[in-house]
Amino acid sequence: MVTVGIIGAGRIGKVHTRSICNFVHNAKLKTVADPFMNEETEKWLKDMGVQNTTKDYHEILNDPEIQAVLICSSTDTHSPISLEAIAAGKHVFCEKPIDHDLGRIREVLKALEGSSLKYQVGFNRRFDHNFAAVKQAVLDGKVGDPHIIRITSRDPEPPSPAYVAVSGGMFLDMTIHDFDMVRFLAGCDAEEIYVQSAVLVDPGIGEAGDVDTAVITLKMANGAIAVIDNSRRAAYGYDQRAEVFGSKGMAATSNDTASSLVLSTAEGITGEKPLYFFLERYTESFAKEITCFIDSIENDTPTLVGAEDGLKPVLMGIAAKKSVEEHRPVKLSEIVY
Amino acid sequence: MVTVGIIGAGRIGKVHTRSICNFVHNAKLKTVADPFMNEETEKWLKDMGVQNTTKDYHEILNDPEIQAVLICSSTDTHSPISLEAIAAGKHVFCEKPIDHDLGRIREVLKALEGSSLKYQVGFNRRFDHNFAAVKQAVLDGKVGDPHIIRITSRDPEPPSPAYVAVSGGMFLDMTIHDFDMVRFLAGCDAEEIYVQSAVLVDPGIGEAGDVDTAVITLKMANGAIAVIDNSRRAAYGYDQRAEVFGSKGMAATSNDTASSLVLSTAEGITGEKPLYFFLERYTESFAKEITCFIDSIENDTPTLVGAEDGLKPVLMGIAAKKSVEEHRPVKLSEIVY
Amino acid sequence: MVTVGIIGAGRIGKVHTRSICNFVHNAKLKTVADPFMNEETEKWLKDMGVQNTTKDYHEILNDPEIQAVLICSSTDTHSPISLEAIAAGKHVFCEKPIDHDLGRIREVLKALEGSSLKYQVGFNRRFDHNFAAVKQAVLDGKVGDPHIIRITSRDPEPPSPAYVAVSGGMFLDMTIHDFDMVRFLAGCDAEEIYVQSAVLVDPGIGEAGDVDTAVITLKMANGAIAVIDNSRRAAYGYDQRAEVFGSKGMAATSNDTASSLVLSTAEGITGEKPLYFFLERYTESFAKEITCFIDSIENDTPTLVGAEDGLKPVLMGIAAKKSVEEHRPVKLSEIVY
Amino acid sequence: MVTVGIIGAGRIGKVHTRSICNFVHNAKLKTVADPFMNEETEKWLKDMGVQNTTKDYHEILNDPEIQAVLICSSTDTHSPISLEAIAAGKHVFCEKPIDHDLGRIREVLKALEGSSLKYQVGFNRRFDHNFAAVKQAVLDGKVGDPHIIRITSRDPEPPSPAYVAVSGGMFLDMTIHDFDMVRFLAGCDAEEIYVQSAVLVDPGIGEAGDVDTAVITLKMANGAIAVIDNSRRAAYGYDQRAEVFGSKGMAATSNDTASSLVLSTAEGITGEKPLYFFLERYTESFAKEITCFIDSIENDTPTLVGAEDGLKPVLMGIAAKKSVEEHRPVKLSEIVY
Repeated sequence: MVTVGIIGAGRIGKVHTRSICNFVHNAKLKTVADPFMNEETEKWLKDMGVQNTTKDYHEILNDPEIQAVLICSSTDTHSPISLEAIAAGKHVFCEKPIDHDLGRIREVLKALEGSSLKYQVGFNRRFDHNFAAVKQAVLDGKVGDPHIIRITSRDPEPPSPAYVAVSGGMFLDMTIHDFDMVRFLAGCDAEEIYVQSAVLVDPGIGEAGDVDTAVITLKMANGAIAVIDNSRRAAYGYDQRAEVFGSKGMAATSNDTASSLVLSTAEGITGEKPLYFFLERYTESFAKEITCFIDSIENDTPTLVGAEDGLKPVLMGIAAKKSVEEHRPVKLSEIVY
Repeated sequence: MVTVGIIGAGRIGKVHTRSICNFVHNAKLKTVADPFMNEETEKWLKDMGVQNTTKDYHEILNDPEIQAVLICSSTDTHSPISLEAIAAGKHVFCEKPIDHDLGRIREVLKALEGSSLKYQVGFNRRFDHNFAAVKQAVLDGKVGDPHIIRITSRDPEPPSPAYVAVSGGMFLDMTIHDFDMVRFLAGCDAEEIYVQSAVLVDPGIGEAGDVDTAVITLKMANGAIAVIDNSRRAAYGYDQRAEVFGSKGMAATSNDTASSLVLSTAEGITGEKPLYFFLERYTESFAKEITCFIDSIENDTPTLVGAEDGLKPVLMGIAAKKSVEEHRPVKLSEIVY
Repeated sequence: MVTVGIIGAGRIGKVHTRSICNFVHNAKLKTVADPFMNEETEKWLKDMGVQNTTKDYHEILNDPEIQAVLICSSTDTHSPISLEAIAAGKHVFCEKPIDHDLGRIREVLKALEGSSLKYQVGFNRRFDHNFAAVKQAVLDGKVGDPHIIRITSRDPEPPSPAYVAVSGGMFLDMTIHDFDMVRFLAGCDAEEIYVQSAVLVDPGIGEAGDVDTAVITLKMANGAIAVIDNSRRAAYGYDQRAEVFGSKGMAATSNDTASSLVLSTAEGITGEKPLYFFLERYTESFAKEITCFIDSIENDTPTLVGAEDGLKPVLMGIAAKKSVEEHRPVKLSEIVY
Repeated sequence: MVTVGIIGAGRIGKVHTRSICNFVHNAKLKTVADPFMNEETEKWLKDMGVQNTTKDYHEILNDPEIQAVLICSSTDTHSPISLEAIAAGKHVFCEKPIDHDLGRIREVLKALEGSSLKYQVGFNRRFDHNFAAVKQAVLDGKVGDPHIIRITSRDPEPPSPAYVAVSGGMFLDMTIHDFDMVRFLAGCDAEEIYVQSAVLVDPGIGEAGDVDTAVITLKMANGAIAVIDNSRRAAYGYDQRAEVFGSKGMAATSNDTASSLVLSTAEGITGEKPLYFFLERYTESFAKEITCFIDSIENDTPTLVGAEDGLKPVLMGIAAKKSVEEHRPVKLSEIVY
């Protein structure tokens, strides 16, 4: 039984609270910290069975009983709290991204060097039943050598331009999940990236200095070509598909729906739209990633998404930005950190 | 918050324990009773957060704090414990069937007459996302007046002939769920039933006096014709489909799979088999039916599957048996109780 | 090269004309006869490359150059012209049904006894790519021993009550194709039939003494149970599906559509409706059945749908009517002819 | 009725012969010319109803009765014969590509300036039921403004390296169809192209100076981003899909199969592979393009794929090659001709 603290009681902090309390049988959530902790949240946490609540996360870091922390606070605090937690001897599960600054990610990597502490980054989609099934098919040799990897990743609604302005941009905010997925499915790193992007969804996003539509081509270390297509707004909902095409065949997944209902009427043959919101779409994967994190602590095995896996997609996002700015293919090796 | 006791800690008792402890936020599971309660089960229940365990279910019935009981004990005890629980002033959730004996079901119905106690029968499939979506489409008028209702219900593996001998036969043991589904989707009762059945899966089932394959035709009170096809063994797994065809169109569901993976190779284009086992297939519906039961207590609304709904499928099962024996269509009104 | 004459230049006569002229490379259509032959039809036939047209089909029967005739005239003339054609030494392709009168079908069977003439009945669906693929899967042992055979056969629009009155009723007019399909897929005859039917589509059909909705259960000679569901009107178009479930698995087909287009919008995920009209749905099968008929003449092999195959579905239709009238399962052996 | 001659009796010449003789009711195929005309081909043509055969295509060009010619000869003769045919006052259907040399295509364009002759290029996929349905959905405003256009185009088997060496390379030989499809679906021209390509299927193709795998990104004049993925070998057969994603939704097509058979067994749920060979996959579209060509002559309307449409994909192919050579995005305006 691993005793856990959660830092940050916002949307994703609550998701992980629910996961640990309901699904992760070998973890006990002792304390949740949030600088804006209020009565309502406290009540909800107590009802879930959480023992302590606090506004100060140091209470968690200083608690010798707590072995592992989940960092679910705002993005800019991920790397500093990671460093503090490692220094305090805690295993860390850190929401993505570790940081937008490569230097600060490097500090986390250094802090982990030679340490036996576990560090996992919150790329939950690797734990999704569909993407995991594609990966397993690849591992089982069903598709042979990968030749073409396709990721379709489209959000149901664009963020506000205000959010866009502070988000680090689409590549670091949204595509970062797809960069991780490409590495996961290819089983190797990207070597080069080229982005064709546009502002087609909301001119306000363009005014905020970002793009909202992109097709991203990647050359992978194993020779495969990967391609991601992104949109900030799909009218039919959250579109999350992947396809690995190789020498022996293709493994592909389609979207999840709330039911398999198909209506046949004079208007056509109609099925349900994809699950609309990432929290409902990825519920299971959020529980699964924490289960695996706890298991890796209990069994002293490497986490399935290590700190290095947290670094690489940020690198790819920075290379993507450079490709847009310089309108040319950019090698990952050009990005110094 | 409703305080609950569970009588019976076997497979389905454990399912409901897990549901209440993890998903039903307005219920508290205080006590679980089982005549064969042992250390292992006690430990599991404690870990789930259950306060008390006992071998004697009267401890639950006599506990004034407990407002509702879930009867998950062996089939023959469903109706007597129902009667005791009603007498003790408890709301009752009773696993299907209430009884195989119509007279004993009638006693339960009588005991509930004039009572404000809630009584719900465990026809969980009504709460399944797929079947509920079909029902909703019917309620929304999407298919118009129902003309033909089709249920495909095939198990992945046949039971042992030994089990068959004590099970009440396929119609009361397996088809009973489909009888309930037909009533649920048609929104009315069956008036007549005709069965064409055979022993094609396991001769041992025939020797035990039962059948393992059947096509059952029903005339419904609203004029629709329903047809159920059953097999005790589908090589590809648990096949659970429904289709309502009416004046305006058709609502249909297909099977659930573990993922949407599709493999395209030189051998063909292959998707996953249906979820194999009823517990994994119907996990969500088990949680949902208990949520609704607790809600009906809290809001003093009728349960969604009342005692009458527990009676009717047993009547249909008995009529089905009579149709096989007499090789003719049997009116439900012929079955006296 | 087989020289052919067609008797009847109505809808189906034109279909076969087009097939022979465009697709059947080893047949030459010399003469088309129709009592109502007019200028427009003559022009169309000349444009297709037909040499002669006539109002008198005896011109075809008396032409020594013509080896085979296609009988596409009105139903009541099928058996008398069959007899004349056989007497004239012609191979015969006869549209279904040979006759509604069993005695007259028997005369055709007798006329063929000991003859080397080919006789094929127009059950074109056996030649359809979907149904043929199911049959092939059964023959290849992919489903094992058949246990349950399901046919869904629903028309897009009901016929007029006036047509219904002279059609022989739904079982002989529409279900007859499904009766043939059941025999084709089961690979054996039906032994017993039970019909649950209703008038749900058009009261005028009921007033004309017929039904428009039915679920028909059949016990097959190999032990399998077959079930056909029929409706005279499916709002979404022509619904033509089949499923063979057996000891090793299931072979199933769905409907054909004009394209594989799927539209994903805020309203849902929508595919095309089934091909609406039997002529567009079964175009290929009409060409294929004639190709096979001509091949059986050229290679002196049995036709794939012989006169016996023309008799059996009529027997089944008569047994179906009896089942409705007497409201009980009827054995095929009860139908004397 | 339009009288037609075909120049070239190879594979595609035979396809068009069959189309005209069987399906195109307002065209008459008078003469077929081929320098290698032999007895077998002559017999086949006579059986199809073709009047004359010849080794010299000038016989066609000099025949005043022939109004239109189909140029189905070897690629290098497309543009010179086009010029001769135009000079002879014939309408021209020319197989793709008009030429690999832009200057020679320009000569054809010039020859057509001010002429009332019809000129159609053989981009048959525009006439395919699936792609045409996607286009229609776009025209109907169902997807709104196009944002992302995806084409998957993978062949079942790679060509021999010997063929590759003389083919003009994958972009002009295979992708050319996809370039046309992108223009067709986007409804506008491409402005810029970037190619990421590799040799992953057959090293011999690399040795012949070509690639066999590519992901091609295009910026379209209307702001949309298009992406094509190509492989010379898909283990599961001929993969031909398209998807247009826009402000209101998405229109997508999947592959055609020989039947809708789905086999459910202990091994999985398996459907048929895509139709394997382009001739069987695109049969209908070959007939439809000729029907439309003849119609445009009869009705004096523009052809649906004009000479300009023949030029643009060649331009795109040349730009694609340049992108590979210079490893950068290439503007179409850079290609001088």
